Amino acid sequence: MSNTNRRKFLGTAAALCAGAAAASASPLQPADNRKPLIHHVFFWLKKPGSKEDRDKLIEGVKTLSRIETIRKIYVGKVADTEKRDVVDASWDVSEMIFFDDPNGQATYQTHPIHLEFVKNYSHLWDKVVVYDAMTV
Amino acid sequence: MSNTNRRKFLGTAAALCAGAAAASASPLQPADNRKPLIHHVFFWLKKPGSKEDRDKLIEGVKTLSRIETIRKIYVGKVADTEKRDVVDASWDVSEMIFFDDPNGQATYQTHPIHLEFVKNYSHLWDKVVVYDAMTV
Repeated sequence: MSNTNRRKFLGTAAALCAGAAAASASPLQPADNRKPLIHHVFFWLKKPGSKEDRDKLIEGVKTLSRIETIRKIYVGKVADTEKRDVVDASWDVSEMIFFDDPNGQATYQTHPIHLEFVKNYSHLWDKVVVYDAMTV
Repeated sequence: MSNTNRRKFLGTAAALCAGAAAASASPLQPADNRKPLIHHVFFWLKKPGSKEDRDKLIEGVKTLSRIETIRKIYVGKVADTEKRDVVDASWDVSEMIFFDDPNGQATYQTHPIHLEFVKNYSHLWDKVVVYDAMTV
């Protein structure tokens, strides 16, 4: 490969890789090479243990993924791990969202999709606990 | 570019991109195309707000990343987000670990590196709360 071709190759290869990285940066499966702000939310249902209400709330939380400042979102239910004193397994649905920074989280709080979610699904939950962690 | 060169180029470019993807698949920044078990831990220090003890504990939690069943680990401190009733900002250090499944988490619990961490750092904390979530 001549030097000119080599330069062209490296430039185009870099562009291809960057394209691949950008393609993977969807809200559900982004590249994660930053130190994200992680917004953890745990919901306790009004009808604890109701599979129907849990599934409805899971459906609702998943609608949040369309908010543009969300880099990743993981929706969860209680895992089947060992019962230990320190483990809180009393909740029903979890939501974990990665933002780039506190501004991303602030935008999310007042975003129409988030407000719509609260309007349509908040009747299902009795209690919410939020932990906002900045990755170090 | 000739057809032969083009084929060579595409082959080499693909190898480069694959290399970049593999390089990012370390315990700290893996690819995340599965539905992980997420192990969330929040620590409250015996000396709340002590920067020195917080930094020591952060150092300790980071040693856990060498445990082979850990797919990702994020260590955090309280983020500078809006104070709201639902936000618990009373903790000092967070640890969020992705495992492939409950077995990965069980292996971690009794792993020598984890036991060493508890031995060396548990004098720093007063309270721990754990949430184990299975991604849905």
